Amino acid sequence: MTHTAEIISVGTELLLGNIINTDARDISVALSRIGINVFYHSVVGDNAQRVTEAVNLARTRADIIITTGGLGPTYDDLTKKSVAAAFGRKLVFHENEAEKIRAFFKDRLGHAEMTPNNLQQAYLPEGCVVFDNGCGTAPGCAIEADGIHALMLPGPPRECRAMLEASAIPYLEKLSDSAIFSHNIHIFGMGESSVEARLEEIMRSSENPTLAPYAKDSEVMLRVTAKAAARDEAEAMMDPIIARVRAELGDIIYGIDTGTLENTVVSLLRARGMTLAVAESCTGGLLSKRITDIPGASKVFLGGVIAYTDGAKTTLVGVPRGTIEKHGVVSPEVAEALAMHVRESLGADIALGITGVAGPGADEFGNPEGTVHIALASSDGVFRRSPPLFYDRTRIRVTAASHALDMARRYLDGLHV
Amino acid sequence: MTHTAEIISVGTELLLGNIINTDARDISVALSRIGINVFYHSVVGDNAQRVTEAVNLARTRADIIITTGGLGPTYDDLTKKSVAAAFGRKLVFHENEAEKIRAFFKDRLGHAEMTPNNLQQAYLPEGCVVFDNGCGTAPGCAIEADGIHALMLPGPPRECRAMLEASAIPYLEKLSDSAIFSHNIHIFGMGESSVEARLEEIMRSSENPTLAPYAKDSEVMLRVTAKAAARDEAEAMMDPIIARVRAELGDIIYGIDTGTLENTVVSLLRARGMTLAVAESCTGGLLSKRITDIPGASKVFLGGVIAYTDGAKTTLVGVPRGTIEKHGVVSPEVAEALAMHVRESLGADIALGITGVAGPGADEFGNPEGTVHIALASSDGVFRRSPPLFYDRTRIRVTAASHALDMARRYLDGLHV
Repeated sequence: MTHTAEIISVGTELLLGNIINTDARDISVALSRIGINVFYHSVVGDNAQRVTEAVNLARTRADIIITTGGLGPTYDDLTKKSVAAAFGRKLVFHENEAEKIRAFFKDRLGHAEMTPNNLQQAYLPEGCVVFDNGCGTAPGCAIEADGIHALMLPGPPRECRAMLEASAIPYLEKLSDSAIFSHNIHIFGMGESSVEARLEEIMRSSENPTLAPYAKDSEVMLRVTAKAAARDEAEAMMDPIIARVRAELGDIIYGIDTGTLENTVVSLLRARGMTLAVAESCTGGLLSKRITDIPGASKVFLGGVIAYTDGAKTTLVGVPRGTIEKHGVVSPEVAEALAMHVRESLGADIALGITGVAGPGADEFGNPEGTVHIALASSDGVFRRSPPLFYDRTRIRVTAASHALDMARRYLDGLHV
Repeated sequence: MTHTAEIISVGTELLLGNIINTDARDISVALSRIGINVFYHSVVGDNAQRVTEAVNLARTRADIIITTGGLGPTYDDLTKKSVAAAFGRKLVFHENEAEKIRAFFKDRLGHAEMTPNNLQQAYLPEGCVVFDNGCGTAPGCAIEADGIHALMLPGPPRECRAMLEASAIPYLEKLSDSAIFSHNIHIFGMGESSVEARLEEIMRSSENPTLAPYAKDSEVMLRVTAKAAARDEAEAMMDPIIARVRAELGDIIYGIDTGTLENTVVSLLRARGMTLAVAESCTGGLLSKRITDIPGASKVFLGGVIAYTDGAKTTLVGVPRGTIEKHGVVSPEVAEALAMHVRESLGADIALGITGVAGPGADEFGNPEGTVHIALASSDGVFRRSPPLFYDRTRIRVTAASHALDMARRYLDGLHV
């Protein structure tokens, strides 16, 4: 039997637009992974009556109800009470949960004094399955009645994601028979509409597995999804589709299930036993930040310079002042000098240099917003890329960093940079 | 009379979690700005029956219904048909909208040839108010029946935001009498539950204006919201609440309506005519990235070093090897050396140094994950902070960068650092 889930997010801050509903997205992704359909997302404010109404409505159109938010210690955290009411349950005090909350404050936050309202989080519906909160104080839980399951998860995205993977998905997998298996094909260097045009015939003709494109920042991801009883069966269904996509797109595919470009670059560096250094101007630390987001980056990333000013370029990196004066600070030559000098001073195998104009507006020399020059220095010489970038400051910075990572990825893969 | 709105987002990609519902956020922010309450967000798939059901449900609990998505040229773009059905209207062909669509393809996309399905976008409910699409082909529209208004906006966030501001909000402002005015009080240095405990009495006793806390990363934001006919009236209502909050929390309030810590620091630097440099280890560029996210940061941010390895600390920053050997690389002394030397080499007024263990796990010297030492170097000497940080790599890096920014903010504000 296939299950139908409805996600109810509780929080007036969502209705005021103070935060985005990333929890519903994260839960939807996880549910489709295990083959559970989601027909509705709902968002309601911190209002007991409306939460109960939303739960009662959900009971008429779904057999799995997942709530997020409203589990906290404050007076407006009323999800458990409202859901329990809809299921005809009382809230009861769980002493061992209270102990965990006291311990959390003592051990993790280092101070014994805890405001009493925190113990409200230890009241849970009678007869529920308790979900531990790996990174917060509010436990979640699940209750079941007449074959309808209600799972209550915390609102803070980190806590919600952690409890989803550790407790909610395992709980739900026991209810599901067939599963969804998928692979993500990661692409850099072609726009979504061009990718779609190239693959239109494959996408149209595929029902199971399906092939669908998703654009994010300056990248395109293709997801191949198969519904099957078991992993090996699904793989056999997906292999030919992936082969056709590879034949169509070639080496602009930078990885399958490898996650981000930075992830791919760090993995390639580790596999090659090589090191990386950077000298970034207009990206202002974003490139380094993305690389060091990856756990274990310290094994291969030596560091670099935020060469945000001419002074930083000359003093910290050692770019000759003459190069800046002759070619202008936003030039391929300065990008090359940044890469070459930071590679030398840190003794890195490869180094990336970026200079450009993130905007808003042109720089004082009239270089338009979006002008970016990138260089990769290596023992095989220096490679350049000067992609014209668009949209806004944020997008220009992200895309510039992505181009730099793509150059590193292509170099490390032995491709034409 | 106050209006109640419900936002219905149409799109299976939302239910699959392929995209986040930023449209609902953007619309909620705009509606609260003009004093329209939002009690529900709903998300439904590209399914005519469920969209019609969602609209019919919304008609029972809201007098303003705003849909996003499903206005495009493809077969699953069925919002207009479904909403029109719920309002008992037919779709009629609008020739002048068709002209705009043909022109868009010709002028903006540069190719005259246009697939015929694009003209489906020119079919709109009879008697509707048409909303021009400033950055796409799909026009939006509004219809009204029995005092209930339905506004249909496109799904792509850029198009939705543009049409919202250009057409939807002006349309709705004509319906609204009172408006909502609010101020955001930004806090760093106290957890949400402690802030709430301190302010509980104010929060409980406030109905108009209201006072509500929102936790994000390592910060807490308090929003004071007043409903009034005019701005000055609202300000007079909010002033005493803000004064009471200030009296209660003091200088952990880093700003009102100032946005982020990095925003505050860049503004303070510009106001003081001072410059900043950084040398960051465990944050790996995140601190610089956050500072350079702010347009105009180049006026005050000189740059810095990602001193991710000992080599980078000694070679690029000039930290004496002896300091590292004597105190260990994760030590207050190395944080101080990072700040002092980068300040000197870039000639900055103030400089921030960070060294620590972002994790996962302890470092090779046994410093536990979350050990972070931060220093601020200035003409008044060097200041230190070694906050114990928790949770995970991402949270530790963000919070460490926030502490560094808070030290700069406090120094620039003449407070005890």
